[in-house]
Amino acid sequence: MIYVIGIGPGSKEMMTLEAINAMEDADVIVGYKTYINLITEFIEGKEVVQNGMRQEIDRCKNAVEIAKTGKKVAVISSGDAGIYGMAGLILELVSKEKEDIKVKIVPGVTASIGAAAILGAPIMHDFCHISLSDLLTPWEVIEKRLRLAAEADFVVCLYNPRSKGRSEHLAKAFKIMGEFKDGSTPVGIVKDVGREKQEKFVCTFDSMDFERVDMTTMVIIGNKSTFIHEDQMITPRGYTV
Amino acid sequence: MIYVIGIGPGSKEMMTLEAINAMEDADVIVGYKTYINLITEFIEGKEVVQNGMRQEIDRCKNAVEIAKTGKKVAVISSGDAGIYGMAGLILELVSKEKEDIKVKIVPGVTASIGAAAILGAPIMHDFCHISLSDLLTPWEVIEKRLRLAAEADFVVCLYNPRSKGRSEHLAKAFKIMGEFKDGSTPVGIVKDVGREKQEKFVCTFDSMDFERVDMTTMVIIGNKSTFIHEDQMITPRGYTV
Repeated sequence: MIYVIGIGPGSKEMMTLEAINAMEDADVIVGYKTYINLITEFIEGKEVVQNGMRQEIDRCKNAVEIAKTGKKVAVISSGDAGIYGMAGLILELVSKEKEDIKVKIVPGVTASIGAAAILGAPIMHDFCHISLSDLLTPWEVIEKRLRLAAEADFVVCLYNPRSKGRSEHLAKAFKIMGEFKDGSTPVGIVKDVGREKQEKFVCTFDSMDFERVDMTTMVIIGNKSTFIHEDQMITPRGYTV
Repeated sequence: MIYVIGIGPGSKEMMTLEAINAMEDADVIVGYKTYINLITEFIEGKEVVQNGMRQEIDRCKNAVEIAKTGKKVAVISSGDAGIYGMAGLILELVSKEKEDIKVKIVPGVTASIGAAAILGAPIMHDFCHISLSDLLTPWEVIEKRLRLAAEADFVVCLYNPRSKGRSEHLAKAFKIMGEFKDGSTPVGIVKDVGREKQEKFVCTFDSMDFERVDMTTMVIIGNKSTFIHEDQMITPRGYTV
């Protein structure tokens, strides 16, 4: 039995009851060490298998092997397990096994939703998620999605916006979207959603400071109707109030 | 004080701890009657203000007036309050008030995430949300977004896909996306996510049966890499397994 659990952005308050119950029911907890550190209160007395970044395949293969021994395994993702998390990889690996291994995906609050609640209501209308990581996706595909999303006037949520190895991706993304996004478009930035060091900034498309952004930051770019009121970013649904 | 709460798709298990705590802390619960029926265990001993569909503005104005009397009000949305929910409207109304009314947005699991967990892992890669309701959005804007989202090869999650008054919207949307979505593209359909009557279907773009879909259904259309394995819909992130 494998639970693939989205633990939400970080705090216990943003976890679902199902995520907590699944962690409590598991014999073994498997996860990226940074995420394991967010759930220390749930790992007491349990076997813990943790490893580093970019070791997702090893981690998931490990989980499948442990599940074959009859133990209940919880694989942890931050946010939602089905959004740039471990759900797909676990299901792909299990589909190649001859044995029947039960998998239960336990949904969670993804980073865009957590960040939106802190910013105000920026994703009240049609929006999209685009990851700027080209580790697994060709950069041309990412560029195409950025351009078409901006043309469609989606609110755009950027995942993996900027890392040490890819410090220029975010500026490039803004340049591409700038063809359709006006300079006055509100942009919301939340670092470390729901964690101790949480920080929030609101600015405009033209005044964006890329240096403020790292891998644990969510960047949300508004649509043509999005406005800033005091320190809040609001995308109206369209009600006349 | 107003809590704007996303209660998740319907079951208590998919609620966050913060949503439960906020409901328990509130003096008054305000919501659409269908959603109030999902949280009966939390309304005992509390004042409840409920009304029908399309009365969102009245409902939120009511909540603001009650908050002015000093009571703690919880405004309930299904899914996440910041995604086609009540968060934006409450913030817009409060921004027009002279009094300082504190608003806390409490995030939740939105329908696409809940449906995805039931289908497998369909939104593992870049995706978008498009509402097919033209009550508040011109149909041309919706058409444009559908076309560009399909061209960008996003996984597409359709909210408000079909109602009695708009029975043709979904078929029209598929016709538009058909310019770019191949007939063999997997489509996942989940009715009443997390509720008693929950139902799940997986089919292809060409074999889609629009009659199966109503207002409480989530429709998820895959990207070029999405595949069906047994009854699961999986969009690979791109790992070589």
